Amino acid sequence: MPRPFYHPSLKEITLDGLLHALSDPTRRLILFNLIGCEGKSCSQTCDNLAPSTLSFHYKVLRDSGLVRSEKKGIEVMNVIRKDEIDSKFPGLLETIYNLQKTTVKRKQIA
Amino acid sequence: MPRPFYHPSLKEITLDGLLHALSDPTRRLILFNLIGCEGKSCSQTCDNLAPSTLSFHYKVLRDSGLVRSEKKGIEVMNVIRKDEIDSKFPGLLETIYNLQKTTVKRKQIA
Repeated sequence: MPRPFYHPSLKEITLDGLLHALSDPTRRLILFNLIGCEGKSCSQTCDNLAPSTLSFHYKVLRDSGLVRSEKKGIEVMNVIRKDEIDSKFPGLLETIYNLQKTTVKRKQIA
Repeated sequence: MPRPFYHPSLKEITLDGLLHALSDPTRRLILFNLIGCEGKSCSQTCDNLAPSTLSFHYKVLRDSGLVRSEKKGIEVMNVIRKDEIDSKFPGLLETIYNLQKTTVKRKQIA
């Protein structure tokens, strides 16, 4: 039996952990690819990374409370815990999502 | 002659660096103590840390672009680069400042 994934409860989720997880551009990309969908496999959110690197980033996202993962057959499906995060840390995801979009656009123009 | 402090230009300031610097509660405390004042010495923003620890946190804050420091006699005076950060990353400092206040309040109640 594979070990189940660890997911912190909402009470255990901290601003420190969220900001640390969000401080990496790859993790922001993965996370914001999960917005508005029912669940995506790891490779569907970011297809240009080595599996071990992708797995590491997903672990940080799960441990911080941003993502919930579930094994479905041979795949791992992921969802963003947006409603929970929004309820405890209002405005955080929206602000960083908007800034991320602007930053990516700025880089494309430069 | 002491070495002058390094401060990144606004162009060099990244969302990654800001979120990393802001992911530490002590650095958020120091930073938000600088809001609305003309400049404070290091010990005025946080008086319960060893000088080396405080110095480390200030270096991270400077390197990320959040704080500007200047030697004045035997003291180092610090200001938050709020207007610059707000112009490039609108909403970031305000959102995290509000969340920090709520988190501290929540801890005091618990």
